[in-house]
Amino acid sequence: MNSTYPTSARGPADHEVRDQILAAATEHFRHYGYAKTTVSDLAKSIGFSKAYIYKFFESKQAIGEAICATCLRQIETEVSAAVAETDLPPEKLRRMFKAYTEATLRLLFHDRKLYEIAASAATEHWPSVLAYEERIGKLLREVLQAGRQSGDFERKTPLDETATAIYLAMRPYLNPLLLQYSLDYTEDGPTQLSSLVLRSLSP
Amino acid sequence: MNSTYPTSARGPADHEVRDQILAAATEHFRHYGYAKTTVSDLAKSIGFSKAYIYKFFESKQAIGEAICATCLRQIETEVSAAVAETDLPPEKLRRMFKAYTEATLRLLFHDRKLYEIAASAATEHWPSVLAYEERIGKLLREVLQAGRQSGDFERKTPLDETATAIYLAMRPYLNPLLLQYSLDYTEDGPTQLSSLVLRSLSP
Repeated sequence: MNSTYPTSARGPADHEVRDQILAAATEHFRHYGYAKTTVSDLAKSIGFSKAYIYKFFESKQAIGEAICATCLRQIETEVSAAVAETDLPPEKLRRMFKAYTEATLRLLFHDRKLYEIAASAATEHWPSVLAYEERIGKLLREVLQAGRQSGDFERKTPLDETATAIYLAMRPYLNPLLLQYSLDYTEDGPTQLSSLVLRSLSP
Repeated sequence: MNSTYPTSARGPADHEVRDQILAAATEHFRHYGYAKTTVSDLAKSIGFSKAYIYKFFESKQAIGEAICATCLRQIETEVSAAVAETDLPPEKLRRMFKAYTEATLRLLFHDRKLYEIAASAATEHWPSVLAYEERIGKLLREVLQAGRQSGDFERKTPLDETATAIYLAMRPYLNPLLLQYSLDYTEDGPTQLSSLVLRSLSP
């Protein structure tokens, strides 16, 4: 092969270069922000040519998307672990709500510059965000189903109606755009809303 | 009296001048925005001296506060009327939530420039906003009390706990900062959340 780019035989594999670009871009965005950075800035800071970066990512948004997706996966790993800690559906629901809030706060608000990517993602409905929101809905329905089967939750209300309403109640703590205005409530809000939700689910 | 300002005997009463300044300021803010306007701009546009305006309002924020308070009173008049239309506490709760959302949308979002004042007021916790939020809590507790007395609502949960949680569920539709990111949900959200809240209140 006469490629001028490194191949697996002569250099790092594609996924390694991708990871290298993403790690460098994450650092760069942390310091300089997402909005103000161009692909040229990134190329300069990583020491790659712009053309080389474009071989792996078609745009700055594609890089932002990949960083955002990694961050959302991290939140979901924490939430899954929290939900798996208990077999009781009401407790699963409480922990799910609490873990989403805490992980989102830590990953997006601890570092304002990552918040900026998340805010763009949420405002512009990036595919990674839409998929994330769907997975939240799926997890919520699974917990609700488990509670209906165990007899902990009522079964009269259609499952989708229940899941949608609970999602709306949780939204101020899940969506970074709303969470920025809910910071005074993150200590007690999720607990108080979980209790309200659990009262609404009692058979 | 040797005042150089108009007195009730020789000109408009103080409250009339105040209202005149407020009407002109509201119009001015509508067109040019709140943040970018100075008291000098207002004075020029109304045709008063800056000193004369300062006789009635100590700052631009004091003018913004008065406009904001008028707007909040208008929302509350609509909500009170909606709540008074029915004697059934569950229905009062539904109408309260719906009326707050609709009135806030119409008064603050129909006109982006009034939204700007409301957003400053909410971000900076202006006294008019704090008082407004307290009155929302008071109305909510009254409706809850009525429902507990009529037997429509459960009485086990402490009233304040119930009221706080319901307020948190309603917040994305009451607070203009959150409402700007809830516009996709204003059609069905308040109804779905009211139903969830009413399920949580069932005795």
